[in-house]
Amino acid sequence: MKTYDIALIPGDGIGKDVTGAAWQVMQAAAKRGGFALDGTRFPWSCAYYLETGAMMPPDGIETLRKFNAIYLGAVGWPAEVPDSVSLHGLLLPIRKGFTQYANIRPHRLLPGVQGPLRSDGFDILCIRENTEGEYSGAGGRVHSGTANEVAVETSIFTRAGVERIIRFGFEQARARRKKLASVTKSNAQKHSMVFWDEVTREVAKDYADVEVSHYHIDAIAARMVLAPESLDVIVASNLFGDILTDIGAAIQGGLGYAASANINPDRSAPSMFEPVHGSAPDIAHLGVANPIAAIWSGAMMLEHLGEGHAAAQVMSAIESITARGIGTIAGKDRTETITQAVLAALS
Amino acid sequence: MKTYDIALIPGDGIGKDVTGAAWQVMQAAAKRGGFALDGTRFPWSCAYYLETGAMMPPDGIETLRKFNAIYLGAVGWPAEVPDSVSLHGLLLPIRKGFTQYANIRPHRLLPGVQGPLRSDGFDILCIRENTEGEYSGAGGRVHSGTANEVAVETSIFTRAGVERIIRFGFEQARARRKKLASVTKSNAQKHSMVFWDEVTREVAKDYADVEVSHYHIDAIAARMVLAPESLDVIVASNLFGDILTDIGAAIQGGLGYAASANINPDRSAPSMFEPVHGSAPDIAHLGVANPIAAIWSGAMMLEHLGEGHAAAQVMSAIESITARGIGTIAGKDRTETITQAVLAALS
Ligand SMILES: CC(C)[C@H](C(=O)O)[C@@H](O)C(=O)O
Ligand SMILES: CC(C)[C@H](C(=O)O)[C@@H](O)C(=O)O
Repeated sequence: MKTYDIALIPGDGIGKDVTGAAWQVMQAAAKRGGFALDGTRFPWSCAYYLETGAMMPPDGIETLRKFNAIYLGAVGWPAEVPDSVSLHGLLLPIRKGFTQYANIRPHRLLPGVQGPLRSDGFDILCIRENTEGEYSGAGGRVHSGTANEVAVETSIFTRAGVERIIRFGFEQARARRKKLASVTKSNAQKHSMVFWDEVTREVAKDYADVEVSHYHIDAIAARMVLAPESLDVIVASNLFGDILTDIGAAIQGGLGYAASANINPDRSAPSMFEPVHGSAPDIAHLGVANPIAAIWSGAMMLEHLGEGHAAAQVMSAIESITARGIGTIAGKDRTETITQAVLAALS
Repeated sequence: MKTYDIALIPGDGIGKDVTGAAWQVMQAAAKRGGFALDGTRFPWSCAYYLETGAMMPPDGIETLRKFNAIYLGAVGWPAEVPDSVSLHGLLLPIRKGFTQYANIRPHRLLPGVQGPLRSDGFDILCIRENTEGEYSGAGGRVHSGTANEVAVETSIFTRAGVERIIRFGFEQARARRKKLASVTKSNAQKHSMVFWDEVTREVAKDYADVEVSHYHIDAIAARMVLAPESLDVIVASNLFGDILTDIGAAIQGGLGYAASANINPDRSAPSMFEPVHGSAPDIAHLGVANPIAAIWSGAMMLEHLGEGHAAAQVMSAIESITARGIGTIAGKDRTETITQAVLAALS
């Protein structure tokens, strides 16, 4: 039987609850689809850090490399471990270390989910650059602690880095409605963002069949609220993609529905799948986290593994339960109830 | 009679239409209030650039310095003049040159205006840093035009720059519901944004009566859509404030309602008032631009000049016409119709 080796990193807080839920659903889909998912669990998390002094072992990245895919719940426990440690010690090194340069996040309303907007007809795919740009980490301070203190943070964009994500965006647009929105702030950031615009114009020559629009981040953020139905595929830098995908999550009803895939398109290393939400310390261990984003992320993993049919079945199962009002109202249904309903719909 | 000297820069496109509208209303309010506004018009704009090669004369900033306030419509005409020229040649130099470090933008629904959100009860005041940060302009490129090209853009935050805007934010919060939301992305940008958080925590010691919350930009962007009623005063960096205020504009019904003040709180130089919207080339010269944002910005100018009573009368006039459905539906009422209605309500 075809077997995929999956690294499971449940992480912290509700990351653990939703990973359990998503994994049960993925297993059920595999069974139906005639393939196997062999999961190896890694306890890397803030708890692990408090015990060992590191979010993962020094050879963590090398350990993960041999897997077919990585599934991550959520990391972070800010009360005990600063974000700078938890995220820069686990999540961000995996994204960068495995050149998962395309962070894909779908935004649409599941049937039965009422979003915050009066208008509901949108179907957006955000493609976020995931390895450089505003998250490069370059910078520092001078005159620390004095009145004269200065902090600088440098965004670094490379031609290869920008070109590959824009090309990826065009490919996605070509496979959908052939409309690509490229996002910058070139009217204020004249080095990095003018560069992004230039590269977009060059790559566009290879995709004459795709209509490209150039938006400033402020304008497209407003557009996602005022006229989301006018958007299809969006390609944006690391920071701008981060912001837009949280707005995308909001208009689709909240972070409980926002799935994501961190893709290494060349398949030179594993890709990673994770719900967009964080570890949500306030509701951790209560069994009330909505696992739908996590299950949807699992479907994206099955799709990436080449099991498109199984992925589609998981999506249908999700849609059939939300259409019946299960998992559609924040806090109403327990994690377990929603998971069992998806499992029942799958079988 | 008390007379204020106002520099009027109508700018480009609908900037000209809405400045005319706002100026009529401000004049009427002045007449009723027993003070005078003496306007001097400056044709600085993209048209001016095409004629003279500059957006304003070399001594433009010095010329403006002697005015009590500056009122600006909108600048930009991207088809003929790149944004890098139009904005960096006029708007941004005024903001920076006159240390207008606090960009204030109110977001609430005017009576009769239906916003895009199902939930309508919010009243947010965004305070945006307006002189440094992500808009510092520092950066450059190496290996231009080669496969090895790299573009960098450096955000520069100074202690004085961050401290004064945060202090300003606290003062505003103290005058309202004593709730301040400070916005960063310190989990990913560990130099600039961790610095901002530190300064916020220090300044907070002087404002024990104000409750401070720390949000990441992605989370608060989503919150503005999902639970805007939970926010009151927001203080954010130049870029983050730019993005949040466009979301604010969106939830209040669109850019036709988004007013702004670029304030020099020390009054060492004039402040500038402008609607948030741009020059909107697509609807320029059609007489259909909504002047409400511009008129509201005029009210903010009156308030800043110390004419709080006149400012309040302008706001009541605006609210009384929107409550009657005038100016509440995009494109329905002409600029002139709305302006006349406000004037009638004022008298
Ligand atoms: C936790 C944080 C560093 C992360 C990001 O900004 O990338 C998260 O917000 C996300 O969107 O995946
Ligand atoms: C035109 C642009 C440079 C400007 C900005 O980003 O500051 C505008 O978007 C605004 O918000 O006033």
